[in-house]
Amino acid sequence: MTHKTLVLLVAAAGLLATAPSPSPAQPAGKPAAPANPKAKAIADVVAANHILAELGVVDGFGHVSIRDPTDPNKFFLARSMAPELVTTADVLEHDLDGNTTAPADTKLYLERFIHAEIYRARPDVNGIVHCHAPSLIPFGAIGIPLKPLYHMSSFLGPGVPVFEIHKAANASTDMLVKTPELGKALAKTLGAHPAALMRGHGAVIVGRDVQTAVFRAVYTEMNAKLQSQAMALGGKITYLDADEAKKSEETNSALVGRSWELWLKKVRDK
Amino acid sequence: MTHKTLVLLVAAAGLLATAPSPSPAQPAGKPAAPANPKAKAIADVVAANHILAELGVVDGFGHVSIRDPTDPNKFFLARSMAPELVTTADVLEHDLDGNTTAPADTKLYLERFIHAEIYRARPDVNGIVHCHAPSLIPFGAIGIPLKPLYHMSSFLGPGVPVFEIHKAANASTDMLVKTPELGKALAKTLGAHPAALMRGHGAVIVGRDVQTAVFRAVYTEMNAKLQSQAMALGGKITYLDADEAKKSEETNSALVGRSWELWLKKVRDK
Amino acid sequence: MTHKTLVLLVAAAGLLATAPSPSPAQPAGKPAAPANPKAKAIADVVAANHILAELGVVDGFGHVSIRDPTDPNKFFLARSMAPELVTTADVLEHDLDGNTTAPADTKLYLERFIHAEIYRARPDVNGIVHCHAPSLIPFGAIGIPLKPLYHMSSFLGPGVPVFEIHKAANASTDMLVKTPELGKALAKTLGAHPAALMRGHGAVIVGRDVQTAVFRAVYTEMNAKLQSQAMALGGKITYLDADEAKKSEETNSALVGRSWELWLKKVRDK
Amino acid sequence: MTHKTLVLLVAAAGLLATAPSPSPAQPAGKPAAPANPKAKAIADVVAANHILAELGVVDGFGHVSIRDPTDPNKFFLARSMAPELVTTADVLEHDLDGNTTAPADTKLYLERFIHAEIYRARPDVNGIVHCHAPSLIPFGAIGIPLKPLYHMSSFLGPGVPVFEIHKAANASTDMLVKTPELGKALAKTLGAHPAALMRGHGAVIVGRDVQTAVFRAVYTEMNAKLQSQAMALGGKITYLDADEAKKSEETNSALVGRSWELWLKKVRDK
Repeated sequence: MTHKTLVLLVAAAGLLATAPSPSPAQPAGKPAAPANPKAKAIADVVAANHILAELGVVDGFGHVSIRDPTDPNKFFLARSMAPELVTTADVLEHDLDGNTTAPADTKLYLERFIHAEIYRARPDVNGIVHCHAPSLIPFGAIGIPLKPLYHMSSFLGPGVPVFEIHKAANASTDMLVKTPELGKALAKTLGAHPAALMRGHGAVIVGRDVQTAVFRAVYTEMNAKLQSQAMALGGKITYLDADEAKKSEETNSALVGRSWELWLKKVRDK
Repeated sequence: MTHKTLVLLVAAAGLLATAPSPSPAQPAGKPAAPANPKAKAIADVVAANHILAELGVVDGFGHVSIRDPTDPNKFFLARSMAPELVTTADVLEHDLDGNTTAPADTKLYLERFIHAEIYRARPDVNGIVHCHAPSLIPFGAIGIPLKPLYHMSSFLGPGVPVFEIHKAANASTDMLVKTPELGKALAKTLGAHPAALMRGHGAVIVGRDVQTAVFRAVYTEMNAKLQSQAMALGGKITYLDADEAKKSEETNSALVGRSWELWLKKVRDK
Repeated sequence: MTHKTLVLLVAAAGLLATAPSPSPAQPAGKPAAPANPKAKAIADVVAANHILAELGVVDGFGHVSIRDPTDPNKFFLARSMAPELVTTADVLEHDLDGNTTAPADTKLYLERFIHAEIYRARPDVNGIVHCHAPSLIPFGAIGIPLKPLYHMSSFLGPGVPVFEIHKAANASTDMLVKTPELGKALAKTLGAHPAALMRGHGAVIVGRDVQTAVFRAVYTEMNAKLQSQAMALGGKITYLDADEAKKSEETNSALVGRSWELWLKKVRDK
Repeated sequence: MTHKTLVLLVAAAGLLATAPSPSPAQPAGKPAAPANPKAKAIADVVAANHILAELGVVDGFGHVSIRDPTDPNKFFLARSMAPELVTTADVLEHDLDGNTTAPADTKLYLERFIHAEIYRARPDVNGIVHCHAPSLIPFGAIGIPLKPLYHMSSFLGPGVPVFEIHKAANASTDMLVKTPELGKALAKTLGAHPAALMRGHGAVIVGRDVQTAVFRAVYTEMNAKLQSQAMALGGKITYLDADEAKKSEETNSALVGRSWELWLKKVRDK
């Protein structure tokens, strides 16, 4: 069994267990098989990196994190590298100030503060994707709101705010959210939404778990693509109304695992 | 020989036999090789799942069914899962009320009533595809009719009605056709047409057999893509006229097997 | 060595020999290694089928032929089947009336008269592609001429006529060129051009050899795609002028082999 | 270890060494392991060819070169062939007049003067890509400037001039830059920019090293695609302002290696 297969099996196992299993009472003389939620979280975030690369949501850039299930003030994120190449050995535990205990010469993502500050501001969020997915870039650069065109993207019902870094920094920047202050400003723009566009840059998408964040990243990108095509047709577009979006999202939230299972297979079979 | 190869060989064999062969009289002492139309139907529906995934008509969602060739009040449909992962063991016989004899904890597609009610309303239909194929979504959200741009989609000649679930339910819904009543309403919108768009959701496409339903799903999607491109060019579009569409469809209906043979090879070679 | 590899090696060899080598005088007692231009032509047309499928110019439909290098009144074309699946055993010699010596139950392409009548009308043509390449369909349905946007499609300089089958047949048809009369009408529309669009259907593209016909099919499709994108930008488009197109085509005609070599490798490596 | 793997390992090693290592003093009696910057440069240019083909920036046409790190008046470029097929044995050293020491019957790229004259005019440039990347062609044919829509293409901040060969030659041409004079004219249009479009033809993109030239070619193409989509949406587009583009480019220039590492893996794994 290869290392990659093993990681994916653990990731798949993690999917089945929706909450960390507490260790049951053990018969004397037999060591407990440790329920290891950290190992599961790391395997999940490695799989999430590979899935996002496979589906074209990230290329050499972009990153995805998962909150430490055993400590809400920590999260797992790879060192600075292309998502497709991330292995368990590359995943580092970060605190909410963006620090790690890795050797000082380890290159960290310049924008780890996106993750740190959103985890700080949003206790309901346990998975975060940052990406430059192509179809999202035009919407971030134009004053046209992204709205749910079909039920797969019904989570967009509450709207998608746009983060304007020039305003947040009150100056021209290199466009990167590379300080805690900019991270806080992005988290404030995001508010309680599932996603925010970042003008001239990309997007951040969050979920109650990393599977949901990945699912939403995929379908935010798809909705942007389809909305562009619908707008080009020139007719009046009927989006999901607020009530439809809410009801659909309630139903869909139970179906995220179906996509995750499929996508795990795709990256495992490569 | 792998299980997958075996399934596909059976599917291919099923293609050659356009009708279930009755068991011929057997020489004494030699058991008949059972002509097994049910096994062929199940192999065909497994192949149809894989083909639709391979061609991007479905992703983690969408489903395809085949009417039981031995009992018109039953149909074969997978349990609730991603089409690409369906195997023969996942295919369940459903009745026209959407019930199966699977164990009570088996997750069924919430929208199996799409299939049940169309099979009930349309005795001429023996295969049904439900999908969220990307190019179809914009047309379902806009008042612009889908029309046949070329002979490959001439089956669209009679037009493609749009199902408005809000009107059918007389209320906002979660967008899913998950009751017999909504299934009946969709079947009524479909009428005698080969396909119907579902606003904010996707489409349903039917055929006299599952090969035809798959063929039509592929070329309905392609026609939507090409019609979008033609409309963007800005000139006056000449669609197939009603007579051309009818004559072309008569010719094409004899050629469906050519695509099926190709697509079977593509999924077998993966 | 697999059969497929062998066919492709022969096809590659055929590329190096730009003209059939006449058998040289042989030393007594030693049989000539037959220079076999027919076998080379068949290998070339098999490779052309696979290349067009690999590049998405054809799907389950479309066909490609080569004139018999030993008899200008004959051409090689597969029996009726998906191009990707064609092998040497499927290639049949057709005469200019569309007849073959294959057994009577062999299914032939309904539209073999496209090839027959163009070979009859155009002695300069030795390879013909008929396809439904997606980007070409919108241009065939609209009164907007296809024009060369860049040097790779400079062969389009003389323009691309559109075949209107309704006018040719003086009636609605099933859209297929399935009689000698319709083939002659298409050949008349094509005239001396390298390509003609067929309204509601596809296109026919020709060349002095099958490599050139394939090259032109690929870049006619690409030009249509790029011209659509340029038109959507809304500015004034500068196409190649007539003199540029002519000079560029003279240069490019010597470079066709470079693409063929690459494409052969792609289908061989699959 | 295959030849291909070896080449890619050398290319990867070349990435780590940002400058040619001078041979250190060697212990007596032990031959130096030659630091071989030429071999590294050749491996890099072979990898660049494969990467550009893999990413669709080049097809059968287009080429990429690297300046000889040991002689600024020389550069490495393949003989005339499809980029995907280039091996180390195909790479030839060219001088700034476009000459090589290869046998007289070796076919050289007709447009090697693009490289020669840009290396002559731009001492800061050590890698050059010439391509016909699809999304760039419409912009080259229209008077609409390409501008950076997001930070990944911030290097486009100084603008992208368009080379009009008709004006440069004061006549219609075959569109190819196949003389030193046309090469000089193109270099003059390029000026100090990172890229220039070539009307009716393609583009040239340069960098301080071949990794940067490849990175810029990929993201120039991506920016053109995204800018087309943004323009189709019809709103007012906010591009990166000059200061943002400058700051972003300074940051990004340190991150080029991350993409190169990913892309090397993609071509190695094929």
